[in-house]
Amino acid sequence: MTVEIQTDRLTEYIKSSRKTYEAKLQEFVDVPSVSMDPAHEKDIKLMAEKAAEILKSFGASAEIIQTKGKPVVIGEFKSDPNHPTVTVYNHIDVQPADPEEWKSHPFKMKIDGDKYLGRGTTDDKGPALSVLYAAKYAFDNKFPINIKFLWETEEEIGSPNFHDFLEKNKDKVAAQSVVVSDTVWISKDLPAISYGLRGMQAFLVTLQTAGKDLHSGEVGGLARNPITELAGLIAECVDAKTGKIKIPGFYDNVPVATKEDIDDFIKSGFNLEEFASSRDMHTMRTDDVRDACARVWTEPTFEVHGITGGYTGPGVKTIIPHKAEAKISMRLVPGQDPEKVSEMFLKFVAEKCPDAKVEVKGSLKPYLGTREGIFCDAAREAFQLAFDKDVAFVREGGSIGAVVSMQEVLDIPIMFLGLSLPEHGYHAINENFDWGQASSGIKLFVHYFKLLSEIKK
Amino acid sequence: MTVEIQTDRLTEYIKSSRKTYEAKLQEFVDVPSVSMDPAHEKDIKLMAEKAAEILKSFGASAEIIQTKGKPVVIGEFKSDPNHPTVTVYNHIDVQPADPEEWKSHPFKMKIDGDKYLGRGTTDDKGPALSVLYAAKYAFDNKFPINIKFLWETEEEIGSPNFHDFLEKNKDKVAAQSVVVSDTVWISKDLPAISYGLRGMQAFLVTLQTAGKDLHSGEVGGLARNPITELAGLIAECVDAKTGKIKIPGFYDNVPVATKEDIDDFIKSGFNLEEFASSRDMHTMRTDDVRDACARVWTEPTFEVHGITGGYTGPGVKTIIPHKAEAKISMRLVPGQDPEKVSEMFLKFVAEKCPDAKVEVKGSLKPYLGTREGIFCDAAREAFQLAFDKDVAFVREGGSIGAVVSMQEVLDIPIMFLGLSLPEHGYHAINENFDWGQASSGIKLFVHYFKLLSEIKK
Repeated sequence: MTVEIQTDRLTEYIKSSRKTYEAKLQEFVDVPSVSMDPAHEKDIKLMAEKAAEILKSFGASAEIIQTKGKPVVIGEFKSDPNHPTVTVYNHIDVQPADPEEWKSHPFKMKIDGDKYLGRGTTDDKGPALSVLYAAKYAFDNKFPINIKFLWETEEEIGSPNFHDFLEKNKDKVAAQSVVVSDTVWISKDLPAISYGLRGMQAFLVTLQTAGKDLHSGEVGGLARNPITELAGLIAECVDAKTGKIKIPGFYDNVPVATKEDIDDFIKSGFNLEEFASSRDMHTMRTDDVRDACARVWTEPTFEVHGITGGYTGPGVKTIIPHKAEAKISMRLVPGQDPEKVSEMFLKFVAEKCPDAKVEVKGSLKPYLGTREGIFCDAAREAFQLAFDKDVAFVREGGSIGAVVSMQEVLDIPIMFLGLSLPEHGYHAINENFDWGQASSGIKLFVHYFKLLSEIKK
Repeated sequence: MTVEIQTDRLTEYIKSSRKTYEAKLQEFVDVPSVSMDPAHEKDIKLMAEKAAEILKSFGASAEIIQTKGKPVVIGEFKSDPNHPTVTVYNHIDVQPADPEEWKSHPFKMKIDGDKYLGRGTTDDKGPALSVLYAAKYAFDNKFPINIKFLWETEEEIGSPNFHDFLEKNKDKVAAQSVVVSDTVWISKDLPAISYGLRGMQAFLVTLQTAGKDLHSGEVGGLARNPITELAGLIAECVDAKTGKIKIPGFYDNVPVATKEDIDDFIKSGFNLEEFASSRDMHTMRTDDVRDACARVWTEPTFEVHGITGGYTGPGVKTIIPHKAEAKISMRLVPGQDPEKVSEMFLKFVAEKCPDAKVEVKGSLKPYLGTREGIFCDAAREAFQLAFDKDVAFVREGGSIGAVVSMQEVLDIPIMFLGLSLPEHGYHAINENFDWGQASSGIKLFVHYFKLLSEIKK
């Protein structure tokens, strides 16, 4: 049993959906569902309710399942148990955003022509809605497929309870494959599918040396300065210029990218100039394109995201801070284990700065999938039909903890059909999405669902 | 011509002054005369007006002199041109203070028994008022001495226009000696006079690598991280554990403290345990008392006061900051020249991190006076009479740029008769002063003025 897609009908559906799509996206974005900040707990709850509401209003079933942490929203467009089933993964929590730094308010979505400005527009509420609109079309037009939804609210904090949720609700989300729409293309002219993700291990390193800030004239020379010491520790961990990590054992089991890997990345159209300019990067660690894509897709990192403590107002206030905290994370590549990396780091800090306290934060395993097989073929064809372009198979430098959990618990193929562009500003200020990607995204998923419906269970 | 001090009369004067002293201090402290913050420009002006007002209301002359920066308030209790003259230096600007960090509002002085809580209570508004009350007593009781006031409003930003002011107004502030009341005792049981000050050179080091914060998953490994690079630069400048500065040439002309210097410091009663506990220092670079006092009084430092840029909210937000600024200053000792040190630092940064921008900020020369001579003898005697204790001659780890200017322009002896205690929290949160030091301070200066009146012009 197969269906045919009537091009005119689909075009008309997408066109006529624009108004409600924008209204729904606005409703979603205006809820500041910041999972990182406990102050937004009630917004997460509200977001889950709104998500369940929209699923129901579209004709799907919907259920909010409480985890040990924040809720997961599941739902389904059911056709027939004998039809194939796909599970769609998205997340409806977002990164924090400081309204003072944005051109428009991050939690009051602004529509500027084709452009949607606001936190979560591209990561990941906009793509989630595109898939939903596609699924509704498939359902209304009786595609012989069951489409399940799996909308998480802890992705931005590393999905700490998702693994447990999956184990407890395995049946409810069971399918032949998963499709994830939460990745970024290499450039706006080149659709890309990631088949590998870096993992991550985050830490908070705190050093306190006094009960209050001190006067650097009075005590300077004798007092320990926690910011200066953390700077020293960081410099012992990483060569900031090359990015080379100096923690003993860190590179054990890290495979070096082969000539073939990099040839593939280059063939996919990775363009260093465009990569940099679309992200407003002024200067980089390398100008060599082969080195560059190997760095973001196949190499681990050590980053300091911020150092708190000390004076941050105008001018120089000559205090010696009493306490400082370095916010650190490392991206890990397939072959590395976050637990082992944590052990190495804890040991290293204990040696170099014994009274620094290390809090082990979010942990995500790296992921490596495949670029071959029937699901990859379906995705290739869907991209061709929706965007009239060959899709490239690349890797993703970021981490989606949920993906590793789905791989471990569900043990089914996972495909990444992303809609975000580099210029959308993932995790950055002035995050945005656009109707071009949203509408072509609906088309992409209609075709993908149709092709999946033809894959025998 | 000499006067005798009638003990009962002075005691009664001090006792009866308490109410107005507290009211005046409150009035002074409640003006947030933060010289570092341009937003407080009008408070500096108001503070100068209030200072001139009180001088006049006490019977002194008063004048507000506009400099190229903020004003200086001068005044005088004139007795006779043939009498000796002393110039009293204080400053009436203050450090910034964040009300959220304080137990009580920093700019709404709270009186808690004998204790006065608020920004500027001990640094330097409280001591300024004690000297003023003493001077009024000397004037009302016809001490044969002229007492001039020199109240500055740019001390906390390194007195950038004070040198120029002195050159233009040399006659108005001419005297046989200067007395400065803006230093901290070694401990509350031990009056101390500083005869040396460290200098200072501050810098802002900025590194920008992109136009906006980036996602560490997307670009990590390729992107330069300005916080990590500044941490690396800092580690190349200083060994945070030992405090040893690694900039080539930095220790040229830095005299090593002699056994005699340190013997004197120790004899003065410098107590490391008390030094640390009164400042709530939990851990230090040394536990050796001789090493400790040499470090704060005779050795240069390199401190990082804060690093801005990056994420500072709760948890870990995995951005790569696009820009970071390190707020740095070095304390310098006699023998070092801030200009030469700046040159060394600029050269070093240009080599190690060529695209970092260095802004040279406040600069103060180190100062070295004497522990011998008639003015020192007068101070010793005044301390004995006011506090019934031997005063110790030590050094000061901090910097008072105005002192170097006075030494250069006025070329007369400068004495430091401080009233602040370590537990008063100079530059720290919950800064305070107390009636004990304020009242004994009045007594101290009455005796000192009396003794100065006996020193022939």
